[in-house]
Amino acid sequence: MDKLEIINQLKLEIANISYSTDVDDLLVYGRDWTRFNQVNAAAVLFPKSVEEVQAIVKLANKLNFKLVPSGGRTGYSGGAVASHQEFVLSLEKMRSILEFNADDSQVTVQAGVITEQMQNFAEEKGLFYPVDFASSGSSQIGGNIATNAGGIRVLRYGMTRNYVAGLKVVTATGEILELNQGLIKNATGYDLRHLMIGSEGTLGIVVEATMQLIKPPVEQSVMLLALDSLDSVMRVFSLAKKELNLSAYEFFTDIALKHVCKHRNLDNPFEDSATCYVLCEFDEDEEAVMQVFEQGMENGDIVDGLISQSREQASQFWQYREGISESIAHFSPYKNDIAVKVSLVPEFMNQLDAMVKEHYPQFELVWFGHIGDGNLHLNIIKPKDMGITDFKIECEIVNKHVYGLIQQMRGSISAEHGVGIIKKPYLGYSRSKAEIELLKGIKKVFDPNGVLNPGKLV
Amino acid sequence: MDKLEIINQLKLEIANISYSTDVDDLLVYGRDWTRFNQVNAAAVLFPKSVEEVQAIVKLANKLNFKLVPSGGRTGYSGGAVASHQEFVLSLEKMRSILEFNADDSQVTVQAGVITEQMQNFAEEKGLFYPVDFASSGSSQIGGNIATNAGGIRVLRYGMTRNYVAGLKVVTATGEILELNQGLIKNATGYDLRHLMIGSEGTLGIVVEATMQLIKPPVEQSVMLLALDSLDSVMRVFSLAKKELNLSAYEFFTDIALKHVCKHRNLDNPFEDSATCYVLCEFDEDEEAVMQVFEQGMENGDIVDGLISQSREQASQFWQYREGISESIAHFSPYKNDIAVKVSLVPEFMNQLDAMVKEHYPQFELVWFGHIGDGNLHLNIIKPKDMGITDFKIECEIVNKHVYGLIQQMRGSISAEHGVGIIKKPYLGYSRSKAEIELLKGIKKVFDPNGVLNPGKLV
Repeated sequence: MDKLEIINQLKLEIANISYSTDVDDLLVYGRDWTRFNQVNAAAVLFPKSVEEVQAIVKLANKLNFKLVPSGGRTGYSGGAVASHQEFVLSLEKMRSILEFNADDSQVTVQAGVITEQMQNFAEEKGLFYPVDFASSGSSQIGGNIATNAGGIRVLRYGMTRNYVAGLKVVTATGEILELNQGLIKNATGYDLRHLMIGSEGTLGIVVEATMQLIKPPVEQSVMLLALDSLDSVMRVFSLAKKELNLSAYEFFTDIALKHVCKHRNLDNPFEDSATCYVLCEFDEDEEAVMQVFEQGMENGDIVDGLISQSREQASQFWQYREGISESIAHFSPYKNDIAVKVSLVPEFMNQLDAMVKEHYPQFELVWFGHIGDGNLHLNIIKPKDMGITDFKIECEIVNKHVYGLIQQMRGSISAEHGVGIIKKPYLGYSRSKAEIELLKGIKKVFDPNGVLNPGKLV
Repeated sequence: MDKLEIINQLKLEIANISYSTDVDDLLVYGRDWTRFNQVNAAAVLFPKSVEEVQAIVKLANKLNFKLVPSGGRTGYSGGAVASHQEFVLSLEKMRSILEFNADDSQVTVQAGVITEQMQNFAEEKGLFYPVDFASSGSSQIGGNIATNAGGIRVLRYGMTRNYVAGLKVVTATGEILELNQGLIKNATGYDLRHLMIGSEGTLGIVVEATMQLIKPPVEQSVMLLALDSLDSVMRVFSLAKKELNLSAYEFFTDIALKHVCKHRNLDNPFEDSATCYVLCEFDEDEEAVMQVFEQGMENGDIVDGLISQSREQASQFWQYREGISESIAHFSPYKNDIAVKVSLVPEFMNQLDAMVKEHYPQFELVWFGHIGDGNLHLNIIKPKDMGITDFKIECEIVNKHVYGLIQQMRGSISAEHGVGIIKKPYLGYSRSKAEIELLKGIKKVFDPNGVLNPGKLV
């Protein structure tokens, strides 16, 4: 059945269905923040209710068209890319906050609610939603859940998973599941909520979520440190972890800092350049922070440092870290989002550094990462004179080395960006054959007709 | 193939296999703490390594015998009961602590390690394993994971799930899965670790686990309060939650207290009996606790109260709560382990109380619960002159009323005890038909020959 016939059927099924086949819309809604795959969407559908989502999915099963669920499209793995005439199912018209319960500290929201909108809502209620990352102004809760988004405060608060108290899901066959209903304890069989979290829209479409909010933390301070070497990063981490109640411990290299300063027109925070920098956030504690600082200086790890004296200054410091992705976006960077156990970070960083320097001197590398979680972002910058296809091929050669090292160290080839299309060929570096067979088996149970996000993840 | 032939095959396959067909062993290892199902195990196998577990499971697939994975057998849902000539696979000879990593604060243990053994190990290392419950002296880590054990400090620390950083699992077909390898961030497809947690030995056998340990809390105080009514329980909770950093908020009735005092030969902590009692544990804070106490007295909710002045006294107070289960065990109580959202607890308690009083005046009820998690334990005591079968039938009539109410309130028919055999007929009160179909589909993917824990959960 061709696209127009499908649209006509959709119109018959759903009065006033909102959709677009406008070329610009297809391009915008047919991709995420990656630029390596061709975009070729059939149409964009904008359901306004759970019932409309259900009707669309049922029709997709009946007429055999494919759906790409779509949130804020801020992903880095092509998980929301429509390349094969799929229908994009955008949740952006479902962005209401439905219910708040102060006794439970829980809020039920539609999937299209923007992360920042929920953070602000929590603040208004005197509570805190701790999951935060650079794209929280555009990412949506549904997408966060579909990818189990992490970000900058995982060290203290964990991933999105930890805050999902209940989910309403439209399954790939158009059934509605209400999973866990906001309960704290519920031992009634396999937890499908946790299976949905991180399933990248391949098992069901999250349409509503009940999120657990928490007490706000005490006042936070931010310390920006210039460090002497990659090894210093972990030594200072051990020190800081012992003395301070950390909520973030972020790392970036001098190249990364220079990109941010140029892009945001900021002054370099230190007089002299250092090998790398660390930003840490923690419960305000003047005495303890001075101890970390002095001890780090004495050990020769810390070269220079700044401690925020106000909230404003803390936000300014955060810019140096949070501005990195944006500052290199126009270079079409190839992003590796990799993780090992925290204890293996120093060895991993040194080996990786040596390896890329030896084999790929032609590439500029921008490193940053959530060191406290063992998570590094290794961005390879596209040389100006190289075409995107050639660049992708070159990066895929780098991948084999990087991922081989990760496999040896039993790490993850995608720490928080998911698998999507881009990481799919490499899944075997982090998951065994037996596991991948089980993933495929699960996919088949949930989506027997292969309607949801085909070609992604498994 | 008969039992002896299977044992001979096992002997051929595994040199020096440890097993028993002794009648007493069959009875001990063929059941958990429930007494409602007939025990009829073929043999008990005691593998000493992952390889032996693997060999047993492979042979079970080949020769079509069934396995019941068995931990500390402290369950209350019959999840570890062998009633149909299954082979019990006990993990109790696999109780080594394999590896500790201070940088990651992680410990890798075999499945048979006792909960208390791990708590003590953590303490030796200056760390803390926060999952705790009355049976931690005999429950095993593998079983805790299989049932996602909760207990008394879920309010602050969450369930066992939160501390599982990695799992080694022997699948139902005898493959080995190494899930998540201790990583903090890992977005590489469906998280099978979370699917295994709480799957009650029906999808795979947990043989090793990497558990996350945390910093120990500051000194804890315990307050024991006598309250005027069920409504007071939640009003005092709201007050305490606001003022104190709670780690436990436990409730029990006067009947429960009397049972403990009699069984442990303890004095009643208060001069006068009250309707019910609350035990709360929190970060020591003299000023705040006095405020809660005074405010609660003023409101008429708190009738009397005691605040621990030492660690010893705190442990003494805990006895009144932790001794309940043990004190009523010899009455063969029928245990309901139910939960609703915290905000619904007052309404739920009142409705439940009225219902059982009206319909079942012949039964003595012992109530206690982890109120801070919305989790109530409603124990029905068997009248002395009633046979166990008749009693079970009567309780199953009670269940329909209780579970009907839970369904209305979108609660859980098993908050932390799992489904096993006993809750299986009632699963539909907490999970929809569509969900149960998916659970069955998943079971089939993981255990195509139905070898693991047949008849449990799904």
